[in-house]
Amino acid sequence: MKLDVKDIYEQIDKFMDKEIEISGWIKNHRKQKDFGFIDFSDGTHFKRMQLIYDLDNPNFEEISKLKIGSAIKVFGKIIESSGKNQDFELKIDSVELLGDCPDDYPLQPKKHSLEFLREIAHLRPRSNTFQAINRIRSVSAHAVHEYFQSNGYIYAHTPFLTTADCEGSDQMFKVTTFDLAHVPIKEGEADFSKDLFGQKTLLTGSGQLHGETMALAYKKIYTFGPTFRTENSNTKTHANEFWMIEPEVAFYDLDDLMDMEEDMLKFIVKYVMDHCPLELEFCDKFIENGLLDKLNNLLKSEFKRIDHKEIVDILLASGKEWEFAPDYEGDIHKEHEKYITDYYGGPVFIKNWPKDIKAYYMKQNADGKTVAAVDLVVPIAGELIGGSQREEDYDKLYNRMKEMGLDPEQIDWYLDLRKFGGCIHSGFGMGFDRLVMYLTGVENIRDTIPYPRTPKNCKY
Amino acid sequence: MKLDVKDIYEQIDKFMDKEIEISGWIKNHRKQKDFGFIDFSDGTHFKRMQLIYDLDNPNFEEISKLKIGSAIKVFGKIIESSGKNQDFELKIDSVELLGDCPDDYPLQPKKHSLEFLREIAHLRPRSNTFQAINRIRSVSAHAVHEYFQSNGYIYAHTPFLTTADCEGSDQMFKVTTFDLAHVPIKEGEADFSKDLFGQKTLLTGSGQLHGETMALAYKKIYTFGPTFRTENSNTKTHANEFWMIEPEVAFYDLDDLMDMEEDMLKFIVKYVMDHCPLELEFCDKFIENGLLDKLNNLLKSEFKRIDHKEIVDILLASGKEWEFAPDYEGDIHKEHEKYITDYYGGPVFIKNWPKDIKAYYMKQNADGKTVAAVDLVVPIAGELIGGSQREEDYDKLYNRMKEMGLDPEQIDWYLDLRKFGGCIHSGFGMGFDRLVMYLTGVENIRDTIPYPRTPKNCKY
Repeated sequence: MKLDVKDIYEQIDKFMDKEIEISGWIKNHRKQKDFGFIDFSDGTHFKRMQLIYDLDNPNFEEISKLKIGSAIKVFGKIIESSGKNQDFELKIDSVELLGDCPDDYPLQPKKHSLEFLREIAHLRPRSNTFQAINRIRSVSAHAVHEYFQSNGYIYAHTPFLTTADCEGSDQMFKVTTFDLAHVPIKEGEADFSKDLFGQKTLLTGSGQLHGETMALAYKKIYTFGPTFRTENSNTKTHANEFWMIEPEVAFYDLDDLMDMEEDMLKFIVKYVMDHCPLELEFCDKFIENGLLDKLNNLLKSEFKRIDHKEIVDILLASGKEWEFAPDYEGDIHKEHEKYITDYYGGPVFIKNWPKDIKAYYMKQNADGKTVAAVDLVVPIAGELIGGSQREEDYDKLYNRMKEMGLDPEQIDWYLDLRKFGGCIHSGFGMGFDRLVMYLTGVENIRDTIPYPRTPKNCKY
Repeated sequence: MKLDVKDIYEQIDKFMDKEIEISGWIKNHRKQKDFGFIDFSDGTHFKRMQLIYDLDNPNFEEISKLKIGSAIKVFGKIIESSGKNQDFELKIDSVELLGDCPDDYPLQPKKHSLEFLREIAHLRPRSNTFQAINRIRSVSAHAVHEYFQSNGYIYAHTPFLTTADCEGSDQMFKVTTFDLAHVPIKEGEADFSKDLFGQKTLLTGSGQLHGETMALAYKKIYTFGPTFRTENSNTKTHANEFWMIEPEVAFYDLDDLMDMEEDMLKFIVKYVMDHCPLELEFCDKFIENGLLDKLNNLLKSEFKRIDHKEIVDILLASGKEWEFAPDYEGDIHKEHEKYITDYYGGPVFIKNWPKDIKAYYMKQNADGKTVAAVDLVVPIAGELIGGSQREEDYDKLYNRMKEMGLDPEQIDWYLDLRKFGGCIHSGFGMGFDRLVMYLTGVENIRDTIPYPRTPKNCKY
């Protein structure tokens, strides 16, 4: 009976005292004179399994020579464990060596720094830490789909290659089939008529605009895919390629949006807690002490909804010395976010932002000064989600684009949405990798995504 | 009570005779002297809803002027329908016009050609046909995740930006932050040391190599994301941006892989049939006559597993005149696929292909002539999935790369997988848009993806 380690952990009663076949890798190997233990994993379960053998085994010598990192196929019997660290173990009948592993295998069983593991990105998924992180990543991605699909949202595959360049392309990668040493030039400019698409083409930085065209057909839609930005910034929270979730809902105002964000985030956290208890326990112990308390607190808390103006009032009244002075016309900085989530003891929606620091498509409030934007800030991680109600009025949107020096003609199709049966609608963007940082306690985005891309770093 | 149309269809007993509020769009409007019918949809359900009003309504005049395409908010009562086309309808108390729609709205209620709808890609999601296609697309995407997650696979987010260029970059887009009119040149070549990543960077054409690094850690993994190819080919089945699913499983040989492919495909088809009965019925009626029979047949059939050599024997013995002569060393063409699925009366796995027409990473069979590759061909659609067992032997892989003029040093990390605990493993790639073509009967890939990208076509 061929099994996965997962099968055995999940149905131990069924397999106890049974002969089985299992394939996987040697994580550790302790040899004594008369017996040996192999720490074994096939990667299907966070916990490893113990294999044991003793002098009764005619191949004792051969087995005891098996090296850490090797791939093996094992035949044996599941038995109750005599040790107290596990309930069962596998008594080896025979082992077949599938793939040997030399002594210079970089992933020897000792503590490795995250920095070292980043250097061996192709092997680090095998380490305990990345077993935890990548499982949580996979399960939270599924939680996202579960949430939206079970609530009647359509998964919208918005495009990644785009010619919609209305926000200016300085944050977007160019995509071309040209030989870059021999770009055809016409009148001093690259001659894109000769490129595959016949136009200057960019890698998308957001699916929102296209998402809105879908929301105005299906009411509730979401995107979930990679996103690209050229920011030349080497911080712990920026990557040039990241995954983003962008739901968009017709007929939702800012309050509806906040209701949904809170509901969604709690759903995802709960889902991951239900499906990854071992992984979260590991992260709580080795990555962020207090992680489980943090997540439990999020589930219990009712998210506050406070205007940007009132937030600045509180920051100014705090009497604290700030690196960035709180400003009614300005952004809320990391230090402010921390103070505010402490002040309220939980997640806070900061809403109704000064319009001059926000995007052209956000709904202009009646005060003429603010837009119906909302950022969700949570304890420790800070900003997790940024969203807004969208401007549904054709003229206001058109004029705002002109004011900001953008060309509305570039995205006439987007403006059409305000012409043909337009309606209020709202949406947000949530960086998925930052969500994984929040869920695992990992402090560097480079450790949440299997092959991170950051300036000067696109190996593999 | 604010509702979605979906809520009402799914729980009509609960809402019958209740006063409700609902927002959506006018799809059609038939006015009589004494009463009127509005065909209404909020996009949350494939079926529309009928709204009725008559002279009892004090705003009869105003309501009767509402235009097709407008967004409205309606208050009214759900009642049993007097007509025989539906079980219920909504008697309007009052209507609020949210967004008007001018008479030149391109999506008037009449039959539009798919070609015309492609020209208004931002509005076509509102049409019946795209209501069906996009719902099936969303549900089948979820089916993919459901299948792999419930079978213990890890969703692996392999990178899209890559410097791994071992297959030659002629099929891959270049990605850069350079101003293409002023690319820095050094010794006649583009000076990529000045680019964001400091290296020539490409958009991925497959996540397989990175996926293998994950499979050798977690046994079972899958990717699901966009993929990019520069093919300058204007066929019905090619797009330059498409979605692909690439599972990879350690310890699986070719038979295990075929088992999984068959199981997965049947799961997805069944899932979509269970979740989109109305949409499939529509497609069967208006897009591909016999679609439902085709899908039911797939569920019932046991997929055949035939060697490439035997397929060519059959083609040669057929006595047919072929456009492409069947060839023991050559590819299987569309006309051959059709003959073979007819011949066997169902899906066929064509396996063990001549090695010279397949990729370097496929496992070399003992005969020295073939590789353990497998293509799944299905009736009508032809090839749906292409996969292989991977070469797990370091030297064979290395030498094959050299033979084919590829540079193994470029992907030393990939070769490492054969050095540190290597094992047999297998995987496949399935084009998701082609799967949607199969599931909907749509004949042109441009109609399965919301914003298709094809040569000279990257609008929006």
